[in-house]
Amino acid sequence: MNIPKGFLFSTAEAAIKKPGRRDLALIVSEVEANVAGAFTKNAVKAAPVRLCMRKIKTGKGRAIIVNSGNANACTGKQGLRDAEKIISNLSERIRISPSLAYSCSTGVIGTPLPMERIAPALGPLADGIGRASFADVAKAIMTTDTFPKIVSASVRIAGKTGTIAGICKGAGMIAPNMATMLCFILTDIAVERKALSYALKDSVEKSFNRITIDGDMSTNDTALLMANGMLGNAPIARNSKHFGAFSKALDEVSYALSKLVVKDGEGATKLIEVVVRGAKSDAHARKAAFAIANSSLVKTAIYGNDANWGRIICAVGYSGIPFREEKADIFFNRVKVVKKGLANNKDKEATAALRSKEITITVDLHEGKSAAKVLTCDLTEEYIRINAEYRT
Amino acid sequence: MNIPKGFLFSTAEAAIKKPGRRDLALIVSEVEANVAGAFTKNAVKAAPVRLCMRKIKTGKGRAIIVNSGNANACTGKQGLRDAEKIISNLSERIRISPSLAYSCSTGVIGTPLPMERIAPALGPLADGIGRASFADVAKAIMTTDTFPKIVSASVRIAGKTGTIAGICKGAGMIAPNMATMLCFILTDIAVERKALSYALKDSVEKSFNRITIDGDMSTNDTALLMANGMLGNAPIARNSKHFGAFSKALDEVSYALSKLVVKDGEGATKLIEVVVRGAKSDAHARKAAFAIANSSLVKTAIYGNDANWGRIICAVGYSGIPFREEKADIFFNRVKVVKKGLANNKDKEATAALRSKEITITVDLHEGKSAAKVLTCDLTEEYIRINAEYRT
Repeated sequence: MNIPKGFLFSTAEAAIKKPGRRDLALIVSEVEANVAGAFTKNAVKAAPVRLCMRKIKTGKGRAIIVNSGNANACTGKQGLRDAEKIISNLSERIRISPSLAYSCSTGVIGTPLPMERIAPALGPLADGIGRASFADVAKAIMTTDTFPKIVSASVRIAGKTGTIAGICKGAGMIAPNMATMLCFILTDIAVERKALSYALKDSVEKSFNRITIDGDMSTNDTALLMANGMLGNAPIARNSKHFGAFSKALDEVSYALSKLVVKDGEGATKLIEVVVRGAKSDAHARKAAFAIANSSLVKTAIYGNDANWGRIICAVGYSGIPFREEKADIFFNRVKVVKKGLANNKDKEATAALRSKEITITVDLHEGKSAAKVLTCDLTEEYIRINAEYRT
Repeated sequence: MNIPKGFLFSTAEAAIKKPGRRDLALIVSEVEANVAGAFTKNAVKAAPVRLCMRKIKTGKGRAIIVNSGNANACTGKQGLRDAEKIISNLSERIRISPSLAYSCSTGVIGTPLPMERIAPALGPLADGIGRASFADVAKAIMTTDTFPKIVSASVRIAGKTGTIAGICKGAGMIAPNMATMLCFILTDIAVERKALSYALKDSVEKSFNRITIDGDMSTNDTALLMANGMLGNAPIARNSKHFGAFSKALDEVSYALSKLVVKDGEGATKLIEVVVRGAKSDAHARKAAFAIANSSLVKTAIYGNDANWGRIICAVGYSGIPFREEKADIFFNRVKVVKKGLANNKDKEATAALRSKEITITVDLHEGKSAAKVLTCDLTEEYIRINAEYRT
């Protein structure tokens, strides 16, 4: 796993939800970096998200501090004060301007941060810089995730090899316009602020905004992209010849991370890729794909290896797009179960196809040339167990 | 249980899905009745729904024939032919015009009706008229329902006592703009066609269109209301003084039936009433209430007796309405868990409140005077089991 030059990491234990794990993490760039961000569209935004959204306007940053175990959401003015305290305390310790430090939180909503336990852990966190790896940070930010998520890619830029590496956490509350999702992507490639911001938004739109686990959109979703320029290339602008290569690599990292989030969806046993093609417009394709991906009945059928395509056609029917069932074909992986809206008598083959761990549901509307792809997972008893017992 | 005058019933076994139960039912009015209908808004409509929608324009009817075990949806032209065959065969046997017979189906989507088993059962069905009760019909139309649903109400009209009685089936695929829901309401009160249609639409809007189990909207939803006038009252028009009393009783029957549907939601252990009040408009209140009622995270929390109000505030946040969390209060039954967007430290009392079988979640937005109420149920492992194994 290649990690971009000039980034250092630290983790510490603050026993935020419970003792026994490192639940604080710090990412520091050795030099000031350009920073871009994408945030939840939920009207309810956690305190740290509100602060991040203000700071990101400068487009500059040095550090990201993250805690898991508590979302610092629905915590009012105290939540904002707590987040600011953490930032100022830590900035002082690592000698950077507080305006260059971003904070993120994930976990339970509505409980104030246990500052009495977090504050004493900030010293060890600052002192530990360089002693942890990016993978350790990926572990520290997990909540109900069952594995850490880390991805990296290399890009040749003007004869040098730059690196883009990202981590994220997901699990539940995953829905478009992000997820209970924190994602931190770092690169040593120099990219101009506007180009960086454009590339991130575009990338998020094609990855994290195209996944859904339970249709719930969280209050804390944050993706931050830091480019510290330590590769020494001429900063990439949107019209630079290297912008395409950079964007492509960023897209790969984002998509791979978003796929890991879905694979690790709460209780998931299968990854489901929903493809709607032959639509009249991208918006139609997206709407239909999300209706299928968010249908509890579709997701439980896939879990049960049941080639119940009626639930798919039904979901397209209520998605709100004009739909002529008599033109539609449906596939489970490569098995065409529906031909022009009618059963194609391939139940046996379809049931066999559903036994794999990665399922592609393809609906061809035969109405036009637009397509959309959405990732989701199956819905299982384990999802219920996790979410019925999350706080207890 | 009072049943309106002049309606007769029959049931028969056609072993549509499997043998051993009466899966065909017939309702016949002794005289021609006025009929109103409300149907699924899913773009995919089952064959019998399409036929019903055509016939209902006449506003007249004598008979309703229903089968469970097969939805006759996504069955193309054959589906229409099959539904028409059933209607013509049966109409001939009971000597009514086929234009006065409505057919309805519920069950699996995408499989043609087993006509070879249904056709021979139509004789016994016709011959059995008068030998079954309305409650027997309620049983025959069940799919994954665990109990039959029947409700009746009496109304004094001009010195006489009229009756409104209804049955329905529900269970899964329950979402606004109806449900996998068949509902048949009968009355001996004479009501003019337009008034009947208006009353039904209004009633459905306040009952069946305000319930959700899994957010999935079915292809077969149908509500039919037959008024045969055997009470002998002067037909009620919209401006009649009795229209209010009739509508009120109809609303009671519809609401009680819709509540039974939610109580019997697949795998449900609790009935959840979501009330959003203090909204700026009815549309805002409804949007927020449905966002809460459709949230898997809210539903699993209620199942787990977890007073996790963060998930409620989060759902309002992504519902699409303007939302100022700092004004909102949230209650579980009478326990105020959130005061002005912040924890009110009533977790213990709230957890105790959640142990009851009927939970009311109230969100007061303190923005205006509009309110909306939506009924739903909790989401449990049993829902997953039922739906992962439905066809197998």
